[in-house]
Amino acid sequence: MPHPVPSLTRDSIQRAHTTIQPYIHQTPLLTSRSLTASTGQGNNQLLFKAENLQKGGAFKARGAFFNVHDGIKEEERQGGVCTHSSGNHAGCLALASRSLQIPCHLVMPSNSSPAKISASRSYGANITFCEPTAPARQAMLEKVQKKTGAIFVPPYDAERTIVGQGTVWLEVEAQVRAMGIRLEDLGAVVVPVGGGGLLAGVCIAAEASGVPVYGAEPAGADDCARGIASGVRVEGLVPNTIADGLRTPVGVLNFPIIKKHVKGILTVTETEILTAQRLLLERLKTLVEPSGAVSFAAVRSEGFQRLGIKGPVVMVLSGGNVDLEKPFGWMTE
Amino acid sequence: MPHPVPSLTRDSIQRAHTTIQPYIHQTPLLTSRSLTASTGQGNNQLLFKAENLQKGGAFKARGAFFNVHDGIKEEERQGGVCTHSSGNHAGCLALASRSLQIPCHLVMPSNSSPAKISASRSYGANITFCEPTAPARQAMLEKVQKKTGAIFVPPYDAERTIVGQGTVWLEVEAQVRAMGIRLEDLGAVVVPVGGGGLLAGVCIAAEASGVPVYGAEPAGADDCARGIASGVRVEGLVPNTIADGLRTPVGVLNFPIIKKHVKGILTVTETEILTAQRLLLERLKTLVEPSGAVSFAAVRSEGFQRLGIKGPVVMVLSGGNVDLEKPFGWMTE
Repeated sequence: MPHPVPSLTRDSIQRAHTTIQPYIHQTPLLTSRSLTASTGQGNNQLLFKAENLQKGGAFKARGAFFNVHDGIKEEERQGGVCTHSSGNHAGCLALASRSLQIPCHLVMPSNSSPAKISASRSYGANITFCEPTAPARQAMLEKVQKKTGAIFVPPYDAERTIVGQGTVWLEVEAQVRAMGIRLEDLGAVVVPVGGGGLLAGVCIAAEASGVPVYGAEPAGADDCARGIASGVRVEGLVPNTIADGLRTPVGVLNFPIIKKHVKGILTVTETEILTAQRLLLERLKTLVEPSGAVSFAAVRSEGFQRLGIKGPVVMVLSGGNVDLEKPFGWMTE
Repeated sequence: MPHPVPSLTRDSIQRAHTTIQPYIHQTPLLTSRSLTASTGQGNNQLLFKAENLQKGGAFKARGAFFNVHDGIKEEERQGGVCTHSSGNHAGCLALASRSLQIPCHLVMPSNSSPAKISASRSYGANITFCEPTAPARQAMLEKVQKKTGAIFVPPYDAERTIVGQGTVWLEVEAQVRAMGIRLEDLGAVVVPVGGGGLLAGVCIAAEASGVPVYGAEPAGADDCARGIASGVRVEGLVPNTIADGLRTPVGVLNFPIIKKHVKGILTVTETEILTAQRLLLERLKTLVEPSGAVSFAAVRSEGFQRLGIKGPVVMVLSGGNVDLEKPFGWMTE
């Protein structure tokens, strides 16, 4: 049975969670006394929602599984799904399609990392390469779609994707309570923002709790921060950051949601991102990609400390897919 | 009250567990479908006991806390404890002494990794450097001991250390059962062997369960494998391996215990160690040092596959302290 496009509400997010729960991991909410001590955050406990341990290594699995299991009609399954992506959305969509044994067609820029290409391939996706430009990706996607009849699954700028990503917050609420912390005592939740699917989803899901939601963005890809500051979504900014998952501009559908709900967008330098990634590996022993470490980088920043937040702080570590052939950024700095 | 030296029995290990539980982590028993699929182990589920997530980043915390909390008389506390170590035993002993606020004196070879030196220092230890040779370490330790009156805590060749390390198995038993797996259905437990404190402890603790215990050793430091093969403990072998925690020869007290209980010692190449370390980082997203990855390397090896083991396999990932300034071994191979 085909489902209607979900409304952008907490109810929809709860329904999405029910749909995807059999397929995704409930990722752990990690703590670290030594990292808490290292931030100068006083007694604010740090809680890391480890979406790097999610299926496919990123929160993107949530939206992908929800799109595939909720958004594809029976008669559309044969044609499968398609998307263009150089990163985690590609791999996670491949994984989600495999769960229904439907075809997955990926358009990937020719400069995508070998690790991400081989991950997508190992999940059984058909990959078409294109020039690494937005028009080339779009043109190639249309070509693939025309040939295969596959349904396009958008990486962030769509209701099902936003609602799917928002499910991460429902787990955080339950995990925080299980730790004996009251939701109203949380100081903040900090979420990396690229296209804004995750941030918009968390904004909607967390509204009822009253927990202040912050976005975290590289200074070299700060279109969301600029947009929130000016009130108008920023287009055409040329990103320059190691956080490859956050180079995309915030989506048309995502921006007004974020603008309405978010307390603020924190920006961080490249060095702050690398230091955060390194500390997570050194102390938590957990591998997070630069994009995923931006939330922790933001919490370690002076900008965050000036907010004077009191109470435990939740950070989403959004992904952990790193090309391990190359040295880490801090090794070559 | 000073306690007598514990007997090398499961009862002692249970008592040690009660003593150290308030101070150590119950580390998780991790699973990974993708790693299980990658080993060619058929349907043998892989269970990773993540001692890289232990306090101080290594199983060594178990023996260190037990020594400090059980082995130091009231009147000896003022003088504190001492040891010589270039690695995890140093940091973990520093951590354990801090829990009782007693002095910790460490003799570290001058070529110890800056990461391990700074970890030990951050836990409040007094560090004396020496030439990186066994006689120099011994001589410097005696000097420090004479000056301070500190009690020597041996890294592996002592009852309390063996019994402390064996506590890891008690947790594995409970965790395996909580997963709905019967102990008698386990195919094997595989444990890295350097000085042999961990392996001897697991041998004693696991005997009652009948689970087959295997040691895992780098081919470039295979004194234990040679000793078991010939029946006589091997001395004087010059180790050559990246697994710095496994370069020590198996201890005098440890060897006969291992010889009596172990089903076999598996040896692995340097490339197999690096591949295992890399896979754990890539798929489990968990940082394990080369020594800690030797157990997984062994399970991936042909030698292990020839054993024809049926049933879930437990591997102890013994530590996760890596010098993150330097590229990983596989990056420069």
